[in-house]
Amino acid sequence: MAVPTPHLRVDLGRLRANVRRVAEHAALARVSLRPHVKTHKSIEIARLQLVSGARGITVATVGEAEAFVRLGCTDVFLAYPVWVDDTRASRLRDLAEVARVAIGVDSVAGAANTGRHLGGTGIEVLVEIDSGHHRTGVAPEQAGLVAQAARRAGLHVRGIFTFPGHGYAPGAGAAVAAAEAHALRTAQAAVEATGLPVHVVSGGSTPTLTDSLSHTRAYRDEGDSTEIEMRPGVYVFGDAQQWELGSCAPADIALTARATVISHAGGRLVLDTGSKVLGADRAAYASGFGRLLHHPKARIVSLSEHHAVVEPAGRRLPRLGTQVDVVPNHVCAAVNLADVLWVEEAGGLRPWPVTARGLNT
Amino acid sequence: MAVPTPHLRVDLGRLRANVRRVAEHAALARVSLRPHVKTHKSIEIARLQLVSGARGITVATVGEAEAFVRLGCTDVFLAYPVWVDDTRASRLRDLAEVARVAIGVDSVAGAANTGRHLGGTGIEVLVEIDSGHHRTGVAPEQAGLVAQAARRAGLHVRGIFTFPGHGYAPGAGAAVAAAEAHALRTAQAAVEATGLPVHVVSGGSTPTLTDSLSHTRAYRDEGDSTEIEMRPGVYVFGDAQQWELGSCAPADIALTARATVISHAGGRLVLDTGSKVLGADRAAYASGFGRLLHHPKARIVSLSEHHAVVEPAGRRLPRLGTQVDVVPNHVCAAVNLADVLWVEEAGGLRPWPVTARGLNT
Repeated sequence: MAVPTPHLRVDLGRLRANVRRVAEHAALARVSLRPHVKTHKSIEIARLQLVSGARGITVATVGEAEAFVRLGCTDVFLAYPVWVDDTRASRLRDLAEVARVAIGVDSVAGAANTGRHLGGTGIEVLVEIDSGHHRTGVAPEQAGLVAQAARRAGLHVRGIFTFPGHGYAPGAGAAVAAAEAHALRTAQAAVEATGLPVHVVSGGSTPTLTDSLSHTRAYRDEGDSTEIEMRPGVYVFGDAQQWELGSCAPADIALTARATVISHAGGRLVLDTGSKVLGADRAAYASGFGRLLHHPKARIVSLSEHHAVVEPAGRRLPRLGTQVDVVPNHVCAAVNLADVLWVEEAGGLRPWPVTARGLNT
Repeated sequence: MAVPTPHLRVDLGRLRANVRRVAEHAALARVSLRPHVKTHKSIEIARLQLVSGARGITVATVGEAEAFVRLGCTDVFLAYPVWVDDTRASRLRDLAEVARVAIGVDSVAGAANTGRHLGGTGIEVLVEIDSGHHRTGVAPEQAGLVAQAARRAGLHVRGIFTFPGHGYAPGAGAAVAAAEAHALRTAQAAVEATGLPVHVVSGGSTPTLTDSLSHTRAYRDEGDSTEIEMRPGVYVFGDAQQWELGSCAPADIALTARATVISHAGGRLVLDTGSKVLGADRAAYASGFGRLLHHPKARIVSLSEHHAVVEPAGRRLPRLGTQVDVVPNHVCAAVNLADVLWVEEAGGLRPWPVTARGLNT
């Protein structure tokens, strides 16, 4: 039975090549990889990453941590300044019984609260610093204060981390990777100045990854031996954002939404996929709401829940009923909408459940 | 056990009042209501609508139709120009064994294809017309051609329908409702000119609803007796878009995302909810990525998957750990991300499953 459109499909060959390529580059730079699984939320892909040498996984929520630990992951970093209350503390303590668990903190008050709930449990913390994205994270110079507060609250401080999200802008990768490296060094020095060791310095994102690995190779050449960890997520699939940022080529894109042409009304090309399948992300630099893998000039110019209007539609519109492959702007959003990813193989399509779909709490 | 944030919660009193108010207004105008269940995807809410007098339900996908029919709905309109292939035809025929089913068509080719698969099954069609939104639907003057093609292909034509989506713009409601009414009248005349009767004329949306009901009352006063049907969806909950369009008041908003303040980094107010809970919709007229129900001046100025940054944050930031109620921009997107809606009641929270979550195929 054919799988009805719209659905998400994965090109397994491309996926494996993306996982392997980044693993090899990280190994060359002596960087630990701890990929962010919020992108795929799928145990099959986490296993590919772990078998390629990833040190552990990164998650965004306690729910994701629970799902992946239940399926055998044993080393999980929740890269988020979790506000720990009784419920979350209980869930995190349960996880720490069967896995190595770390979470983020980004304030003295947060460190004290975390320590009150989790001090002495073996759950470690990393201090989040703001390397220029201006979302969460303390200023690098203040990392020592937060680390000290965590230590005082009975927590083991593993190190520091940041997310260089301002690298999601055209041409920003190199400058942002440099700013990230500088911020991490500053924060590391600030923590070490308080007498606490920094075991791990953690950063990285898909658009800044190549530049970050070059920085790290330079440090290594200078004899630096700190453990440097990177947490890219999107690289496994790529998406229209990475395509437009230049951090992946269309030939590397491993996930698409298969859609059907359903209307030519008014000379328009309308597909049966929309924001409930692709997500509605549209960054300031995005040229549309998504792209077509095999028609690089086409753009989704308007998107509703179940309709994508495409321009330019070309001189001859593809016939009604034709199927096309849409590249979502932001693959993490698309995957979180799907219960299943359909993996292409010779005999047809195999379903991979999206293990942690919707586990965003 | 407390339900961790972020989660969606429903104010049942407000929800019931919204359902009742629109049912009463429709009854006064002698309009049939066929609410769009893509907004809530929840059988409990469909039942509230049906018991308040709705004639049936509207769905966007075959998957939604299957979910609601399985739970007892017996009259379903799939308001979409479905491209029928073997798989969809088989699913639709199964549905038609146990429910009254209609689908949309918006082209001669689509009508012929639908007839090839579904002619003689009892599944009816409505011709979609474009009343100015310019997405799918034929020009009103061409409705007769499509209706004739459907008839020739062995399909029973129930009537015509449109979605006045261009009413989603500030101040547009009245003019768009007038344009919609005019387009529907034109299309009705075009179909009737071919000798085919128009049993139902179907339109409506939450932002245009009040104006559409006024138009219909005027027709009724002129002695018109055509069945007029409206398919609003969002009115059951309201959302930040409707708030900003003026089609609901904050006091009517029945669904919010409960979130926790997790960071004050850099003097910012950061909540633990993001696009994986709220959706990423941001219409051109939207003042942000979402609003706070009890802080009308506040806006979500940046949104990532698990972070919402709020401005103005006020002179004194709410303490870390404080919970706040976020109004999503587009409630249909938020509901489709959640497996459960938490209904507030005196003793705590009761879970309502989102019956058709993710059934977007």
